[in-house]
Amino acid sequence: MKVYNSLGPNPRMLRMFILEKGIEIPFIETDLMGMANRKPPYTDKNPGGQMPALELDDGTVIGETVAICEYLEDVHPTPALIGSTPKEKATHRQWQRRVELNITEHMYNGFRYGVGADMFRERMRLIPESVDGLTTLVQEKLAWLDGLMGNNDYICGSEMRMVDLILYCAMDFGTGVGQSISSDLKNLTAWFSRIDSRPSAEASKHQTTAEVGMRGI
Amino acid sequence: MKVYNSLGPNPRMLRMFILEKGIEIPFIETDLMGMANRKPPYTDKNPGGQMPALELDDGTVIGETVAICEYLEDVHPTPALIGSTPKEKATHRQWQRRVELNITEHMYNGFRYGVGADMFRERMRLIPESVDGLTTLVQEKLAWLDGLMGNNDYICGSEMRMVDLILYCAMDFGTGVGQSISSDLKNLTAWFSRIDSRPSAEASKHQTTAEVGMRGI
Repeated sequence: MKVYNSLGPNPRMLRMFILEKGIEIPFIETDLMGMANRKPPYTDKNPGGQMPALELDDGTVIGETVAICEYLEDVHPTPALIGSTPKEKATHRQWQRRVELNITEHMYNGFRYGVGADMFRERMRLIPESVDGLTTLVQEKLAWLDGLMGNNDYICGSEMRMVDLILYCAMDFGTGVGQSISSDLKNLTAWFSRIDSRPSAEASKHQTTAEVGMRGI
Repeated sequence: MKVYNSLGPNPRMLRMFILEKGIEIPFIETDLMGMANRKPPYTDKNPGGQMPALELDDGTVIGETVAICEYLEDVHPTPALIGSTPKEKATHRQWQRRVELNITEHMYNGFRYGVGADMFRERMRLIPESVDGLTTLVQEKLAWLDGLMGNNDYICGSEMRMVDLILYCAMDFGTGVGQSISSDLKNLTAWFSRIDSRPSAEASKHQTTAEVGMRGI
């Protein structure tokens, strides 16, 4: 297997997932800023044009970060980052969708249509008139999640799962582009520090295989 | 197990999935129009407030349609509607996310913020200024998918999968609210007819257990 890797919060989430799994997969660096991901040969492999992607040994390419992570969980089940039983997996997938469809997708679109518009204008259709609404919605849904989390250590309860990595990487990125977790949200603020203190959080900030030190944590 | 069922394209998708699986699960009808899904006791079970939900025999409630279907696939693997191997599952999940994040989520939000605003105003924050952009984006992404499908019978290739049900139920609903598949999109138009001709497509239009005739197809 190999990973097509680049800048950006989704490739970072995959690096963090791989580090938490303790597996090793070589990375192929892709020039995101030069738009290598939006043209052949990359789009012949992943017509979604998004980063990262996973190439299997038979040449099959899997795009979409969550689909890649589900595959890695299927072939390397431990430590479980999605779940060990159908019920655990279902509970995780429920929270994953709540977090993605209510928070992270809106956060990323708000970024692409707003602060990041100069980078994305040639890559996709932008809806800049929705930026204020999306930004407000993200904050409201973070507050909703803060209330639901209560005293749980992690989003699904007592175990750290992929959804924690998804939201952490999104909001760590968001903090740099004007969309952060308000300090008024005590549960989520404590949760963010909890994830941020993991060795995989620091290591995954570095992009290349050598820098990440895949063997190192 | 039991399903909290109601009006709407997502409960309909779950009914179609269950019919294709050939399994039987009792339905509990929930008054969507009366907003029973946005208040206790339903929100105590599913704080996302969305329909449908699946209650397991131990009382655990799983929200989010795709999470429910993944659970049903885990416990009733055949016929495979997600995949029989990690690679098949990964390929499906990749396409599912492409379809949902590029097409169906935008279609549903365009509906909620626009044609459906009177129903959704008290249920969620609306971003009506994004409706035109979302509607245009959906059409562009349908055209993109039409090109990628080529002569494949189904979105993932030669096998019908959950993603076909997701897009079919969304666009069958969309047709009623001004967002349909353009007849110019020959591949998707043929695909839509292919799914529409399945017995599960007709049966799942009916809402209640008795009407659906779960034993009947």
